[in-house]
Amino acid sequence: MSEALRALQQRLAAFAAARDWEQFHSPKNLAMALSAEVGELVEEFQWLTELESRELDAERRERVRLELADVFIYLLRLADRLDVDLLRAADDKIALNERKYPAERVRGDSRKYTEYD
Amino acid sequence: MSEALRALQQRLAAFAAARDWEQFHSPKNLAMALSAEVGELVEEFQWLTELESRELDAERRERVRLELADVFIYLLRLADRLDVDLLRAADDKIALNERKYPAERVRGDSRKYTEYD
Amino acid sequence: MSEALRALQQRLAAFAAARDWEQFHSPKNLAMALSAEVGELVEEFQWLTELESRELDAERRERVRLELADVFIYLLRLADRLDVDLLRAADDKIALNERKYPAERVRGDSRKYTEYD
Amino acid sequence: MSEALRALQQRLAAFAAARDWEQFHSPKNLAMALSAEVGELVEEFQWLTELESRELDAERRERVRLELADVFIYLLRLADRLDVDLLRAADDKIALNERKYPAERVRGDSRKYTEYD
Repeated sequence: MSEALRALQQRLAAFAAARDWEQFHSPKNLAMALSAEVGELVEEFQWLTELESRELDAERRERVRLELADVFIYLLRLADRLDVDLLRAADDKIALNERKYPAERVRGDSRKYTEYD
Repeated sequence: MSEALRALQQRLAAFAAARDWEQFHSPKNLAMALSAEVGELVEEFQWLTELESRELDAERRERVRLELADVFIYLLRLADRLDVDLLRAADDKIALNERKYPAERVRGDSRKYTEYD
Repeated sequence: MSEALRALQQRLAAFAAARDWEQFHSPKNLAMALSAEVGELVEEFQWLTELESRELDAERRERVRLELADVFIYLLRLADRLDVDLLRAADDKIALNERKYPAERVRGDSRKYTEYD
Repeated sequence: MSEALRALQQRLAAFAAARDWEQFHSPKNLAMALSAEVGELVEEFQWLTELESRELDAERRERVRLELADVFIYLLRLADRLDVDLLRAADDKIALNERKYPAERVRGDSRKYTEYD
């Protein structure tokens, strides 16, 4: 894990400990909190066209930025609770995906992309 | 952004570019993909007690680890597409939360925790 | 509640009872299961354009149909467990929405639609 | 489809038409809206124990009731747009589940329940 991520996880752990909230932070509950935050993120995009979603106005962009932060915070907290190294997990998953979706086989093919994903 | 996160985002961008998949990676679509991955994570925990969720067996733990990776990957990709620095956004959000939930006011109070969150 | 919905809820209750699964069907757990099923539904649409989502091929349409069924099943089960009459709740919510979004004020205005929703 | 559900779908279609909102109601967008509403539902339960989720206080119960209504509304709207009969789809899915999880084989077995679900 990078030092920056580790430092952030420690700050989040201290935030929870100072409020005696660790009792609520079971992995089950944190997975739910993560899911609720992603729901708020999705809500920002649900009525936008894809094009509009690429060109957010300043106000929505800032709301989205803070929703991304909420998702990141609960993801880090959950990973910490389960003692999972997110960077290593991502590396392992990308390696799996590289074998699963060879570039020459799936290039630009949305149908295949959809089916394989 | 930390160098490790930036490097991971570049690797993900290259992965998408090599497959000509950038056309599918609008923020709207990536928010949906993030949401679907969180659904798979939630599924792992839905019938477990909180206690069981703290003590995963090896097989489920590995599945959860790779689901966390998927969530992380789409979160990084979405942040990259929106040019959001996740570490800075998390710092900003934690500062907001520290003002919103002063430790001495909400300590150990699940009712307040629930209402305020 | 309509007789058809009530009959379906009773069939689902009997299904769970025959398997001694009621112990797992707390409202908390059912909300998670509902969320996971919606994740599978979202996955079917995540890389499609809006236009493509209006014209599903037969194979995807059948998968979507069964995902909608899963969402409906957990929604009915959760409502049953909480003793909520879904038809009455929907009537009440639509009445609230009619006051919140008067037709003459929000007509065809996606910006307002987005902000108000 | 039961008459009550069909009537509710027609009321929702009229509500959207009166506001010229049909343009936003692609199946893709409605799946996102459904997902966001389920996120709000999950948020109500995320810090509760399973036991607490079975015994909601009056205030939370009413919020949950209206969240269930929102989920139901978007589910009906999406099914309408895709011309899916939800009652028939649920019947078909339950029949599939009865073959997949024979009562005598999975009774009271949370491990199997979890794996098979």
